[in-house]
Amino acid sequence: MTNTDESLFERYQSVRRQSLKICEPLEIEDYVVQPMDSTSPPKWHLAHITWFFEIFILRQYLPGYRLYNAAFDVLFNSYYNGVGEQHPRPKRGLLSRPTLKEILAYRRSVDVQMQTLLSNECSEDLVFRLVLGLNHEQQHQELIFTDLKYNLGNNPLYPAYHDLQTENSQTEDQQPVPQLEFDHYSGGVHKVGRSKPSSPLDFAFDNESPQHGVFLQDYELANRLVTNAEFLEFIRDDGYQRPELWLSDAWSLMKNQQHWQHPLYWHEIDGNFSEYSLAGSHPLNLSAPVCHVSGYEADAYARWKGMRLPTEQEWEVAASGHDIEGNFVESGSLHPQPCARGSKQFFGDVWEWTQSSYCPYPGFKVFTGELGEYNGKFMANQWVLRGGSCVTPQSHVRATYRNFFYPADRWQFSGIRLARDVGQ
Amino acid sequence: MTNTDESLFERYQSVRRQSLKICEPLEIEDYVVQPMDSTSPPKWHLAHITWFFEIFILRQYLPGYRLYNAAFDVLFNSYYNGVGEQHPRPKRGLLSRPTLKEILAYRRSVDVQMQTLLSNECSEDLVFRLVLGLNHEQQHQELIFTDLKYNLGNNPLYPAYHDLQTENSQTEDQQPVPQLEFDHYSGGVHKVGRSKPSSPLDFAFDNESPQHGVFLQDYELANRLVTNAEFLEFIRDDGYQRPELWLSDAWSLMKNQQHWQHPLYWHEIDGNFSEYSLAGSHPLNLSAPVCHVSGYEADAYARWKGMRLPTEQEWEVAASGHDIEGNFVESGSLHPQPCARGSKQFFGDVWEWTQSSYCPYPGFKVFTGELGEYNGKFMANQWVLRGGSCVTPQSHVRATYRNFFYPADRWQFSGIRLARDVGQ
Amino acid sequence: MTNTDESLFERYQSVRRQSLKICEPLEIEDYVVQPMDSTSPPKWHLAHITWFFEIFILRQYLPGYRLYNAAFDVLFNSYYNGVGEQHPRPKRGLLSRPTLKEILAYRRSVDVQMQTLLSNECSEDLVFRLVLGLNHEQQHQELIFTDLKYNLGNNPLYPAYHDLQTENSQTEDQQPVPQLEFDHYSGGVHKVGRSKPSSPLDFAFDNESPQHGVFLQDYELANRLVTNAEFLEFIRDDGYQRPELWLSDAWSLMKNQQHWQHPLYWHEIDGNFSEYSLAGSHPLNLSAPVCHVSGYEADAYARWKGMRLPTEQEWEVAASGHDIEGNFVESGSLHPQPCARGSKQFFGDVWEWTQSSYCPYPGFKVFTGELGEYNGKFMANQWVLRGGSCVTPQSHVRATYRNFFYPADRWQFSGIRLARDVGQ
Amino acid sequence: MTNTDESLFERYQSVRRQSLKICEPLEIEDYVVQPMDSTSPPKWHLAHITWFFEIFILRQYLPGYRLYNAAFDVLFNSYYNGVGEQHPRPKRGLLSRPTLKEILAYRRSVDVQMQTLLSNECSEDLVFRLVLGLNHEQQHQELIFTDLKYNLGNNPLYPAYHDLQTENSQTEDQQPVPQLEFDHYSGGVHKVGRSKPSSPLDFAFDNESPQHGVFLQDYELANRLVTNAEFLEFIRDDGYQRPELWLSDAWSLMKNQQHWQHPLYWHEIDGNFSEYSLAGSHPLNLSAPVCHVSGYEADAYARWKGMRLPTEQEWEVAASGHDIEGNFVESGSLHPQPCARGSKQFFGDVWEWTQSSYCPYPGFKVFTGELGEYNGKFMANQWVLRGGSCVTPQSHVRATYRNFFYPADRWQFSGIRLARDVGQ
Repeated sequence: MTNTDESLFERYQSVRRQSLKICEPLEIEDYVVQPMDSTSPPKWHLAHITWFFEIFILRQYLPGYRLYNAAFDVLFNSYYNGVGEQHPRPKRGLLSRPTLKEILAYRRSVDVQMQTLLSNECSEDLVFRLVLGLNHEQQHQELIFTDLKYNLGNNPLYPAYHDLQTENSQTEDQQPVPQLEFDHYSGGVHKVGRSKPSSPLDFAFDNESPQHGVFLQDYELANRLVTNAEFLEFIRDDGYQRPELWLSDAWSLMKNQQHWQHPLYWHEIDGNFSEYSLAGSHPLNLSAPVCHVSGYEADAYARWKGMRLPTEQEWEVAASGHDIEGNFVESGSLHPQPCARGSKQFFGDVWEWTQSSYCPYPGFKVFTGELGEYNGKFMANQWVLRGGSCVTPQSHVRATYRNFFYPADRWQFSGIRLARDVGQ
Repeated sequence: MTNTDESLFERYQSVRRQSLKICEPLEIEDYVVQPMDSTSPPKWHLAHITWFFEIFILRQYLPGYRLYNAAFDVLFNSYYNGVGEQHPRPKRGLLSRPTLKEILAYRRSVDVQMQTLLSNECSEDLVFRLVLGLNHEQQHQELIFTDLKYNLGNNPLYPAYHDLQTENSQTEDQQPVPQLEFDHYSGGVHKVGRSKPSSPLDFAFDNESPQHGVFLQDYELANRLVTNAEFLEFIRDDGYQRPELWLSDAWSLMKNQQHWQHPLYWHEIDGNFSEYSLAGSHPLNLSAPVCHVSGYEADAYARWKGMRLPTEQEWEVAASGHDIEGNFVESGSLHPQPCARGSKQFFGDVWEWTQSSYCPYPGFKVFTGELGEYNGKFMANQWVLRGGSCVTPQSHVRATYRNFFYPADRWQFSGIRLARDVGQ
Repeated sequence: MTNTDESLFERYQSVRRQSLKICEPLEIEDYVVQPMDSTSPPKWHLAHITWFFEIFILRQYLPGYRLYNAAFDVLFNSYYNGVGEQHPRPKRGLLSRPTLKEILAYRRSVDVQMQTLLSNECSEDLVFRLVLGLNHEQQHQELIFTDLKYNLGNNPLYPAYHDLQTENSQTEDQQPVPQLEFDHYSGGVHKVGRSKPSSPLDFAFDNESPQHGVFLQDYELANRLVTNAEFLEFIRDDGYQRPELWLSDAWSLMKNQQHWQHPLYWHEIDGNFSEYSLAGSHPLNLSAPVCHVSGYEADAYARWKGMRLPTEQEWEVAASGHDIEGNFVESGSLHPQPCARGSKQFFGDVWEWTQSSYCPYPGFKVFTGELGEYNGKFMANQWVLRGGSCVTPQSHVRATYRNFFYPADRWQFSGIRLARDVGQ
Repeated sequence: MTNTDESLFERYQSVRRQSLKICEPLEIEDYVVQPMDSTSPPKWHLAHITWFFEIFILRQYLPGYRLYNAAFDVLFNSYYNGVGEQHPRPKRGLLSRPTLKEILAYRRSVDVQMQTLLSNECSEDLVFRLVLGLNHEQQHQELIFTDLKYNLGNNPLYPAYHDLQTENSQTEDQQPVPQLEFDHYSGGVHKVGRSKPSSPLDFAFDNESPQHGVFLQDYELANRLVTNAEFLEFIRDDGYQRPELWLSDAWSLMKNQQHWQHPLYWHEIDGNFSEYSLAGSHPLNLSAPVCHVSGYEADAYARWKGMRLPTEQEWEVAASGHDIEGNFVESGSLHPQPCARGSKQFFGDVWEWTQSSYCPYPGFKVFTGELGEYNGKFMANQWVLRGGSCVTPQSHVRATYRNFFYPADRWQFSGIRLARDVGQ
């Protein structure tokens, strides 16, 4: 592959720097804790995304490369059985060592070696792995925000990660969100998914391919996301208490383990809801999209409206006509914002739950080798979410991008778009 | 609706009698126990299918009907929140009372009232509920076999439910199963699902409708089910020890809770496998279809072969051209049998795992009223199985019939058919 | 040892017959279920007490004896690791086979062999094992009542084991219980425990020996058991809601797992308490001793009174001056009865919680051989109870008898006697 | 009470300073994690011992005192229900905020107020609370070491807290430990426990009182602690595999949850045992006392020797004749050391398991008020340990001092002294 070394390393540096920038406001203590099994400490994230470059690139492509620390090979392996054993996931927050300082040294060491490697001719496979590693790092940048919010947002002191940008949200509050309307989409055979990229720089994950035909009925999608005000109506209509609105597994979960009464991060103060955002606890912005709902809650809300969630194919067909613009991490708000006039909110703000189980596309092939574990093995029991969120890097998202979570998960920035059949 | 009273009640009697006939070989003690949360005691099944007629028909349609025993309304309600509270499912096996005798009296009482009711003009809705109730009872007849096998097959004494029909299985053993081949099916837009029945007597479950178009790629399906001999190769190739063959949730389950090393009901005696069937423990019949594998095991096996499971749409398109013939409960073997020459084994023997998550068809509507809980609320986290098994009544199955279990379940009679993409 | 064959076998027969007599009112279904891990099905009890004679006597002393069924050796071994593996305790209620009928045949077979054996000269060790076996069977007779009550008393139908003997309890109700008073006992060095018996017929368990001196302070014990009326005052004074009254482990258990609000088998109907007894559900008899309280509840009640539970030594010193008379199983009431004038209620009615941890007496030696597991290995985490209950055979109890349960247990017939220091 | 202000505050300062000194070698990350529910993060310990002075002294005695931060009242309350709600114990390690810095500021603020308070006349109750608070802080100093060792010793990197003092341990290794012998102690009535102190400065915990008589049999105690070499023999004799050596609850725990094969912090490297100490991982010192065994392991070891553990009374009578000298925290080794000639090792090195359940002495009264929760409510299910350890401050221990842990606990510095009956 023609060497594009400088720009490749620049691209590398730019993404890598962003990870550290996200962590700047943190106290050392914030880097350590793991408030639930699904989250990871920021310290672990920083080490793991470095490990990814070390294991999948340096170890393969840098002649004579020796592992920085053999113990890290286990400690910072997330789930790659092909690579070897892993430190148990629920115990990531029990490791006070290596310290943050030691992990930053590890990062610097890998960065130096990567610069050496990228200063030479790069094979197509190396470039592919590099771009994958950078997309991987972007995913973890979003996870750092997501996991950090879970940590701080469950702390009784409600500490803020950053200051509220008041003038911004004030303005948004003033302006009413567009009325809820439904856009009609025509059925028939549509193409969805991503055709094989011509260059590793034109990146897509394996789970987005191959492009293939699907047959859809005519359908309608809401012109914007469901708002907090609208979700409040569901709560006040006893939505959380009515079994007929809930999937059986959801109802059972709510009876036995989770006693949900409202979205995550809402808390009642004197009968009114406040919401924790990364700017601290503030009164609920009624115009903003509801966020941090599980797939089960999204499904129950839609059922309560007599509607349903979109399938991922319906969403993709509708969204693919739109520019990838919206409230991404670059806006700095780190919180979903009310729908702006003219926007359909397909991209940014919140990941939109679909009713589609995360499954292989027809003809799906995983990445080759150890990287085959990246996506494919998670294709059971999870649901697809689409569109990116207010903590996703804009450059990271596509109309074909498939995110996935268990339907009971709600610590990620996830929200609801309504769908309905035609004639309903 | 035109009264077809006599034939309706005859149909009722015929199905009802079958439930008792299935239980004839049981000892009273067998009616009581619940060896895991997902199973129910035969005593409970017999009461619940009676409760179904009482609650959804007699209480609605027989003027002045009084509940047989108000406590039964809770004890024998399976999962109908719309009807009321339920005795906790995992505690069904802790009820020594009502006794079998008392439950049989309950059955007789309801049967008498049903006869009265059906001797009069029957509304279309009543006929619909009756036919639903009979299909419901057939489902529980299969469950009685399924749950009973789990009870007896986990008893260290391996007691038999019935005698082995030796001449039958002997013959089958002799004759080699057809060689594994793949049949080609053409893609394009196909119709799947069931169009709305014109009469309640022409029954289908709500989850089979509406009929709708799907776009398929060309695909290939195996000409028969995977055999025990073939599955043994997977075991001997360390299939259960190789994480790359397993979905992540499956691997995690196997590390932490289930330590699967072979299908359920297999047990090793001096290095050879025996298998428990309802006729007791016998050496594994290598020609018979592998049975009692979970969806996860089916998926891992297919991956090991470099293939995959069919989607439910692929299965339905392929199977709908075939007669509904095969090894059903009426054959009396109560165990899957080797593939006979000329058969594709689409129907009977074992429920075939598909890779499809159990989800609503486009435009799906649940049954109206309390019966809406019958199927719809289970559309999460389960996989579709097709084709019926050796303990399914033949009249109960259709090409459009969608059975569903969690991918970790394996106490039901479930097996594997391989699929692959064209050109593979 | 001089052969006392006839009387030995008569004694054997008499105890054995009693076990069957207890079971007479049961339905077959009642023999099967195990409503919690600590209980066993009556069917299992009947088999286990037979197994005890087979393993510890016939296998040792009857030349050429062959095990009735090798599988029973595992199935009906309770906890004797020295004998071999055991069927998991929590799964005793999952065995529908062997059936009751098969177990009764097993009992008869062992009885026949025992008659043969006992018709010959019996060694002292054999007589010891026989008498131990009969005491063991008496313990299980009490457990059959105890476990059966847990089964029926948690069944929503509240089925009765026998009819209420109305005239009896009516009379008792009329007559007021003696006023609560405290008897003074002098401290100093006292002897407690049982000196080594001179003959195996003069039986005591190993845990009652050796007799030894203890130094006690002066102390006072209540002249009778705490009544339901008195316990109700504790409930109405929010006793169950006040952490300062509870041991830390108790409070934690109540917050996290058990949500006790009253003794076991009490249930509120329209604001009044009823109590389930083996005669069914009846309004609470306020004069009767409170029963089915855990050690934690007994301790909290005593603390609420500003008093404490007796130590087992205090209890024994006080009780040893009294005849072993009271409301035992022979009275047929199977329920604690109000204190009769003149009685101190030391024996019968309810096992009395002491504050003493179950531990070895100084110089304690376990029974020799496999029987060493009978008592000694349980000397951790349990508390001693004294005096026998309304389901204990009168001949089974002694002033030195040490029963033991975990302080969280309350399905046994256990109650409270108050103690206090002098000068309090 | 006569003001002894200066010396009281000096005493206060001296103990308080020690807590910080212990933490000096820690990285900030070490202050945060909680590797199991029973441990607490050092950060939490530092805050809690400050909270103790704030709540029980400043709030009571400093006029106009306002809480430093109302949220801390909940966050740093350990278990005082009388004071109010508590942050859930297992979630102490999920709090990244308040940061260490904020907690140190909290400490300084309380110290300033304490100085103010102690510069005035102090009532007897205030002095009592002060001395209690200092003893409380000393207990937590030991816990900081204990919990920290659990954190670092379970980290795959085995980081050291301090450097090994080589010359010291080398010397010890050379010198053989005294041969195991048994000292005879005469039975009869002995006094144990602590008589009421005449001054609050003459401190003892409530659980050590009142002094009272006990009647003991003659008994024998080992002349020193059990060594690693001796414990290795137990391991090599399959001690961990032989159920007859274990209490029933211990065996069940080992089968189902804990799979103990050796003491905590031992790890096998190429067939030889190393042991983690606060100086890192080093080859096992065979002459040193075995440490970090549970009460169950101590009991099994003694049973394997045909002996038993001492009762706490036997221990106290034997130890009370000895000076309180030994390997305490002041020695700086932070690890048990081989028995020195002439020592009986009653004090220091390891807490010695007794067979005594932790229970109230006759006539026991808890501290008054909210402080009554300090000790009394833990008197169930725990065993008494005696003598202090290598991480206990020397001034903190007495012959009457009763420490207590669950018999399954082994992260504390606990070891074994053998006892036996006379004539054994």
